[in-house]
Amino acid sequence: MAATYAIGMDLGGTNARAAAVDEGGRILAVHKHVLTARTPEAAARALADCAAAVRALVRPEQGACTGYGVGIAGQVDAKTGLVIVAPNLGWRDSDFGALLAARLGAPVALANDLAVATLGEARAGAARGFADALLVFVGSGIGSGLVFGGRSYRGARGVGGELGHVKVAPGGRLCGCGERGCLEAYAGGHGLARRASEAIAAGRASTLSQLPGGGEVVTTMLLEQHAEAGDALSQELRGEAAVLVGVATANLVTMLDPSVLILGGGVVQGSPYLRRRIEEVVRDNASLASLTDLLIVDPALGDDAGVIGAAFLARERAPLG
Amino acid sequence: MAATYAIGMDLGGTNARAAAVDEGGRILAVHKHVLTARTPEAAARALADCAAAVRALVRPEQGACTGYGVGIAGQVDAKTGLVIVAPNLGWRDSDFGALLAARLGAPVALANDLAVATLGEARAGAARGFADALLVFVGSGIGSGLVFGGRSYRGARGVGGELGHVKVAPGGRLCGCGERGCLEAYAGGHGLARRASEAIAAGRASTLSQLPGGGEVVTTMLLEQHAEAGDALSQELRGEAAVLVGVATANLVTMLDPSVLILGGGVVQGSPYLRRRIEEVVRDNASLASLTDLLIVDPALGDDAGVIGAAFLARERAPLG
Repeated sequence: MAATYAIGMDLGGTNARAAAVDEGGRILAVHKHVLTARTPEAAARALADCAAAVRALVRPEQGACTGYGVGIAGQVDAKTGLVIVAPNLGWRDSDFGALLAARLGAPVALANDLAVATLGEARAGAARGFADALLVFVGSGIGSGLVFGGRSYRGARGVGGELGHVKVAPGGRLCGCGERGCLEAYAGGHGLARRASEAIAAGRASTLSQLPGGGEVVTTMLLEQHAEAGDALSQELRGEAAVLVGVATANLVTMLDPSVLILGGGVVQGSPYLRRRIEEVVRDNASLASLTDLLIVDPALGDDAGVIGAAFLARERAPLG
Repeated sequence: MAATYAIGMDLGGTNARAAAVDEGGRILAVHKHVLTARTPEAAARALADCAAAVRALVRPEQGACTGYGVGIAGQVDAKTGLVIVAPNLGWRDSDFGALLAARLGAPVALANDLAVATLGEARAGAARGFADALLVFVGSGIGSGLVFGGRSYRGARGVGGELGHVKVAPGGRLCGCGERGCLEAYAGGHGLARRASEAIAAGRASTLSQLPGGGEVVTTMLLEQHAEAGDALSQELRGEAAVLVGVATANLVTMLDPSVLILGGGVVQGSPYLRRRIEEVVRDNASLASLTDLLIVDPALGDDAGVIGAAFLARERAPLG
């Protein structure tokens, strides 16, 4: 059989990226654009330009292009290609799938970025060979991706997997989504940093208050450094975050009984404490039966998971357009 | 095409039941045995006897039997037919699938009883026509069933869906499963009754203490009656149960984005307050996007969901044996 490749694309708040990916999940060529404007039109143009650049880089003997897929940081209606909401891009109810298909002159399959990254890890990364995988991602926000019976799953409307917005304290802290008490408001990177700043503003002693800006510019990296250096506030906040994320993840393991749990995201990967502690809390709280032989692993594809997963999405799902 | 039927069976702690079910999910004949002994051998014999009785009741023109399926109140390894644990039957690591197949003289497909009931509701009941459904069941215990992309899902090991054992208070009340802090220990029928008895034993005023037995024999039906009559303890306990079940269910809706949520089980169906309040809490706490057009409905098949679902399981899954 002649070789083929698919174009996988990734749209974040800052960059548009495309890669040509072969059947085995290997990247043949990659191209990146910094977004100069965040309108759907500008993003569609940037992605289409990246895709064209990548296609020009693939040699004819490397095969024919079979299709296009894209992962987007937002809620995507997979059936219609509508982006329901993409907070980092400032979009709401954007008919982005149609725009991008028109730019590409070809159909395109759309999905949420974490759903797509999970598909990449399931096909060619840390969950390769397993039919049932769960990816939990803790960065500035918190999200997850699900693979059931070998297929990427995002729900009836395409808006599932929003682990950051499960309620851990109904009526509690206000979240960026407009609701109260979401996991992300307590344990996501933004939420953690904000909670540290608030505690310092309220007079809580912490070495973070000695930073230039006086505790107003806390980041999770600084929180991690100060926790390691013995700051009680920093230790308390990251400890609480580990328990919240760990219990929420354990409950998903109990419910979904995956073969593999992938723990990723900048905040987890930047904190050996969090990585270790979340795994401990998962093992302490998931049902015993679901923990039998459960693998808990780091992501294997890094930043490439998105474009690789989007290429598999293009191969496996009937595209729009 | 000639008509066919499958035999769906249901094994609870008290009864064995079998039904002949046609392609449309209609019951052609049904037979029930009270279990005289709870050993795997006795249960296999009782189910096989029910199946034979049912087959004898079906008229030749109603079609040919295409296979056997069974739902069991316990954790079932669907690949091997091993019953990992069935608390109501007192089984652990029982090779029940092989026993039953030998008794039937035919292969049989096994699954958890709620997984099977959910499949029944999805194929021929309240979730008919929807690819993605979630059933939440509050009886003495708490459980759930999942249908994703039209297929019954129970996880990699077949032990998912255990909503009763997600942790709502890590380190909290001891649960029947041996772990602490499970939802079921707080909000299941047994857990609720026990909490009422404990509160009364600890001196809490309640009209439940005037019952014969002095509050030691509380049932959820009594709790409901006393709550309706104004007893503060009863109201407090059922109110807390509604919030715990409602938030756990809302979090599943946020994560799994089903088209239909079926709220069932004796405790919910015996309490209009709980039924209404759980729905309210779900609508207050699930993500807005997942609530769009979400149907929240009662089960449609009642006690027949299990045998009807088991018949569809027989049709749709490669059986063991």
